[in-house]
Amino acid sequence: MENANSSKEEEKFRVRKLELSDKSKGFLELLQQLTVCGSVSDKEFEDRFKEISSYGDDHLVCVIEDDSSGKILATGSVFIEKKFLRNCGKVGHIEDVVVDGNARGLQLGKKIVGFLSDHAHSMGCYKVILDCSVDNKGFYEKCGFKQKEIQMVKYFV
Amino acid sequence: MENANSSKEEEKFRVRKLELSDKSKGFLELLQQLTVCGSVSDKEFEDRFKEISSYGDDHLVCVIEDDSSGKILATGSVFIEKKFLRNCGKVGHIEDVVVDGNARGLQLGKKIVGFLSDHAHSMGCYKVILDCSVDNKGFYEKCGFKQKEIQMVKYFV
Repeated sequence: MENANSSKEEEKFRVRKLELSDKSKGFLELLQQLTVCGSVSDKEFEDRFKEISSYGDDHLVCVIEDDSSGKILATGSVFIEKKFLRNCGKVGHIEDVVVDGNARGLQLGKKIVGFLSDHAHSMGCYKVILDCSVDNKGFYEKCGFKQKEIQMVKYFV
Repeated sequence: MENANSSKEEEKFRVRKLELSDKSKGFLELLQQLTVCGSVSDKEFEDRFKEISSYGDDHLVCVIEDDSSGKILATGSVFIEKKFLRNCGKVGHIEDVVVDGNARGLQLGKKIVGFLSDHAHSMGCYKVILDCSVDNKGFYEKCGFKQKEIQMVKYFV
């Protein structure tokens, strides 16, 4: 029975690529839990979706949808940076990982980060990096990451 | 006289976009001062150059060449990430900033970072970010940056 349930859970919380229709499934409301998202029209969403899609596998946004409610419960993105150093190496940059506050404890964040890391690996990256708050350090350590440098920021607005 | 000299210095250490011919001007040897660069053939360099160029203003590599020696003294890059959050905002990511060890004290690093930040700003980014060692924090503060988060990394090789 346990295996059957696990398998059902696995099926229920599958990671997949973002789709255009996810805007109506609470994708932006989920991002809003991370930071300001603002009011995005259907046209603006579609334009940005197409812009990101034009990079193909070099910029991937993934989500987990709750099949029973039809709501997006978790998301994250990764883009592949092309470098000259490390023998013209590539680096994956993970951004905007967020799990719905009501869906904690289901390991959805770990699934998202695993999916994005695997993608970066399969794209030939020699490493994958991300910036996070000190509070989230423990979570990313469980995902196989280690602290390395510090993040600096300059705001224009 | 002082103004005339300053103006000459300004002209001498101009920031410009990377060119294909910079490989023979010590561009890779400069990157090597930052981290492992490896042996990159002309073909590999050209392929990567074209790949990055295909992103247009979304991925810019800049350099400062010493006009008298014809050597590349400083470099840095920035790429523009497209997001859904912050009203479909954009973020500039600065990477691979390095100044030749023999050209310290000429403010070349500040010029490079200023050039890359200005580019991100002109592309409509709401912020520009970078990761650095704690040792370099003071330098980036002089460039107008503030520490925010921590960087986590997972290596594949």
